[in-house]
Amino acid sequence: MEWLEQLRWDEQGLVAAIAQDARSGRVLTVAWMNREALKATVEQGHAVYWSRSRKRLWRKGEESGHVQKVLEVRLDCDADAILLKVEQAGGIACHTGRESCFFRKLEDGRWVSTDPVLKDPKLIYGDQ
Amino acid sequence: MEWLEQLRWDEQGLVAAIAQDARSGRVLTVAWMNREALKATVEQGHAVYWSRSRKRLWRKGEESGHVQKVLEVRLDCDADAILLKVEQAGGIACHTGRESCFFRKLEDGRWVSTDPVLKDPKLIYGDQ
Repeated sequence: MEWLEQLRWDEQGLVAAIAQDARSGRVLTVAWMNREALKATVEQGHAVYWSRSRKRLWRKGEESGHVQKVLEVRLDCDADAILLKVEQAGGIACHTGRESCFFRKLEDGRWVSTDPVLKDPKLIYGDQ
Repeated sequence: MEWLEQLRWDEQGLVAAIAQDARSGRVLTVAWMNREALKATVEQGHAVYWSRSRKRLWRKGEESGHVQKVLEVRLDCDADAILLKVEQAGGIACHTGRESCFFRKLEDGRWVSTDPVLKDPKLIYGDQ
C-alpha cells in the first residue's frame, strides 16, 4: 500500500477529504479520513470517512442512504488533502437535507441560507 | 463581526478553506484560515490564508502574482469549513505551475500526475 504511505498524515493520522459532485461540479462536503478510511473508500468505491466526533469510521450514507459513489480520487501537491469526484445518491449530501453542506453564503456581513431543503431530515433519519 | 464568531474555529483557531474556480468549477486549493485571514479575505476581496508552516498570514499570490479574486464566500453546515468561489489570476493556483493543486489521480494503486505544468515554477518564483 505504498500509495497510502505517500500521504502526509497529520499528527492525528488524518487528511482532509473534499467530495465534489462529478456531474454538477458542486462541492458537497468536507470531512476527514485516516488510512483505514481512505483504504476502504478505494476498495469499496464508496466514501468512508473518519468521524472525529464519534471517533469511528463513518460510512457516508450509513444512516441516510445518501452514499457517495467514488468515481475519482485525487491528491493535492503537499499530499495532505484528498478530492473525491462522486455520484451523490439522492442528490443530498448534507444532514440538513440539502444538496451541499455549503448552503450558506456571506451577504453583507450575514450568513444567508441560499439552498432549499430537498427532504425533511426527519424523513431521512426518523425522529431521533 | 458577528459573522466571524459564528464559525467553529478549531483549537488552533483555524478552519479549512477550499478555493474553487468560479468558471470551470475545478477545485484549486485547500488551505487554512484564522479569523484575521478570513476577515482580510472578505474586506480585500482576495484570498488570504494562514500559513501553518510559516506561521503568518499568506496573501495568496504575494510572490507568484497568482492571486485569487473572491466572488463568493460559503460556509458549511457545521461551520468549520469555508468555500471560496474565485477567479484565479493566471489560471495557475499551484506552486508547481499547474492549474490546480489536485493534479494527481489514483490509478491502479499509483498517484499519477494528470495535469500539465502551465508555467515553469522557476519563471514564477525565480531561482530560489
